[in-house]
Amino acid sequence: MQKIMGDASAVVPDYLRGLAAAHPGVVEYDPDNRIVVRRAPVRPGKVGLISGGGSGCEPLHAGYVGLGMLDAACPGEVFSSPVPNQIMAATGRADHGGGVLYVIKNFGGEVMNFGLAAEILRRKGIRIEKVLVNDDASFPPELAGRRRGLGATVLVEKIAGAAAEQGRPIDDVAALARRVVERSRTFGVALSSCTHPKTGRQTFQLPDGEYEVGVGIGGDRGHERRPLPPVGDIADVLCERVTAELDLRPGNPVLVLLSGLGSTPSIELYGLFAAVRDRLVKHGTEPVRSLVGDYITSLDSLGALLTVLHADDELIELWDRPVHTPTLRWGA
Amino acid sequence: MQKIMGDASAVVPDYLRGLAAAHPGVVEYDPDNRIVVRRAPVRPGKVGLISGGGSGCEPLHAGYVGLGMLDAACPGEVFSSPVPNQIMAATGRADHGGGVLYVIKNFGGEVMNFGLAAEILRRKGIRIEKVLVNDDASFPPELAGRRRGLGATVLVEKIAGAAAEQGRPIDDVAALARRVVERSRTFGVALSSCTHPKTGRQTFQLPDGEYEVGVGIGGDRGHERRPLPPVGDIADVLCERVTAELDLRPGNPVLVLLSGLGSTPSIELYGLFAAVRDRLVKHGTEPVRSLVGDYITSLDSLGALLTVLHADDELIELWDRPVHTPTLRWGA
Repeated sequence: MQKIMGDASAVVPDYLRGLAAAHPGVVEYDPDNRIVVRRAPVRPGKVGLISGGGSGCEPLHAGYVGLGMLDAACPGEVFSSPVPNQIMAATGRADHGGGVLYVIKNFGGEVMNFGLAAEILRRKGIRIEKVLVNDDASFPPELAGRRRGLGATVLVEKIAGAAAEQGRPIDDVAALARRVVERSRTFGVALSSCTHPKTGRQTFQLPDGEYEVGVGIGGDRGHERRPLPPVGDIADVLCERVTAELDLRPGNPVLVLLSGLGSTPSIELYGLFAAVRDRLVKHGTEPVRSLVGDYITSLDSLGALLTVLHADDELIELWDRPVHTPTLRWGA
Repeated sequence: MQKIMGDASAVVPDYLRGLAAAHPGVVEYDPDNRIVVRRAPVRPGKVGLISGGGSGCEPLHAGYVGLGMLDAACPGEVFSSPVPNQIMAATGRADHGGGVLYVIKNFGGEVMNFGLAAEILRRKGIRIEKVLVNDDASFPPELAGRRRGLGATVLVEKIAGAAAEQGRPIDDVAALARRVVERSRTFGVALSSCTHPKTGRQTFQLPDGEYEVGVGIGGDRGHERRPLPPVGDIADVLCERVTAELDLRPGNPVLVLLSGLGSTPSIELYGLFAAVRDRLVKHGTEPVRSLVGDYITSLDSLGALLTVLHADDELIELWDRPVHTPTLRWGA
């Protein structure tokens, strides 16, 4: 595999510079602190939302900074967590007097570094709440501690961001964020690994005709390798654990996010979505909102993550509220 | 390379079914005629806009159907033009009494089949105008007849679509579309070929450390193969011909579209954008609007197409008007 970016050490700052230049009214890049900050005016007292994580999973998180979503994002190096200094700088920019909510994916480094930053800043009197995103259904419930934060992160950022924009207090916003996590599950498959920009090598080798079941977004292997089935069977694999864990019943409204992992052609991703949706409908649920595209990725992996949120009227109403970020934009 | 879609013969209809299911209020899929039609209400007398082309270049064109853009799209098989029957069916759905504008990319099959459909329907009294998109700067001016329709297609559909939505007459809308073509140029590079779903094979072999210069969107080779340079040099290659042909002068406003070809990670594409934008600014031009992402692709190719439009106030005003399609959405 080849890479466009010649200088691997510059890949993250170059990305951030390009993002800010392409969306000048929406986000600002602070190169000294390596954070991305929203530009839209903020009402005093608004709860601040920040998130961050290893780069390589774009548009996470910088692509979700803006009106109705995140106040700031802290991108780490490729597949490495942001450091506490970034998180503290982002908190400073996101603190509008109403407290700051950290959206933390359940990866060791993120949990540790957001935790450290929170500890330091709370001592300085800043109100900080944390929500842990662990929607990964590839680990069984008894291994819940290992469940990674995957597609639900996007839903948490959108829905909690809308609530914050409405001026709701931090306890409400945090409770909503946790409700989204509890009611979401994600399962992923990969038909190829990705190519790490530092090494120029694939993170694992997968023979033609096989695929990885239960992958995340760090370029690592899944739980199991299986012979490649027809598309309908991939849809079965994606839906099975997700629907079982959410205890979905006929008539339940669901919000569906089907994200490509980076190099899945749109023509194939929508085809897979058609098969996934058929299964959800057959199960009796009603997909009331759908998002299909590269919304949480793993560099140039070929594959997909299915996230299903067992929705309700309040969550849908917040989902539909205006958003204006580099990646998601509607009603604004 | 592997494919998610097992049944290659179903790849196009499955995509279209998924697209319509994911965007139920925006587009409708008519499987009998294999066309995608806008759902938003249309004012009587509005000029209809249709386009079409080989599949594999998604989101072209079905992803651009909706309010403020296309009335209907006709997707062919992968890398094959739509047939006249599709185009005639789409024209029927797009004809609101103000005439229909065909946006035709300069590929032999498209020119022929849109031409045939226009000939037949004009005899039935339908007013049809055609605009030929040939923004490909990889062929020199003396080979202008071979210049393919590339990224300018997206800009034509957006800008002419906005003018049609305003209720302007067909001569105005067609003149605007032609102005966009004349003032746009595109140049592309590829670091890999793509994998054709029918054959499961790459359309050409490219050794590691080399790239193709002057590619289009049909999975075919470019004009030249070069050793892979650093990202800055790729930006030079992309900008060189485009700026030379547009005769850009200091202070000229430009609209920049940098599209990934399908498997270019967002982190690399934005990094490339930063380098491209630096060059345009150094050249004295002012990038007033930018679009960075997979907006015109070639299945799972790794690479990018740079399109620059020498803009003016009227074109920017139309660019900014509301749009609501599966792919582009703002102000609505």
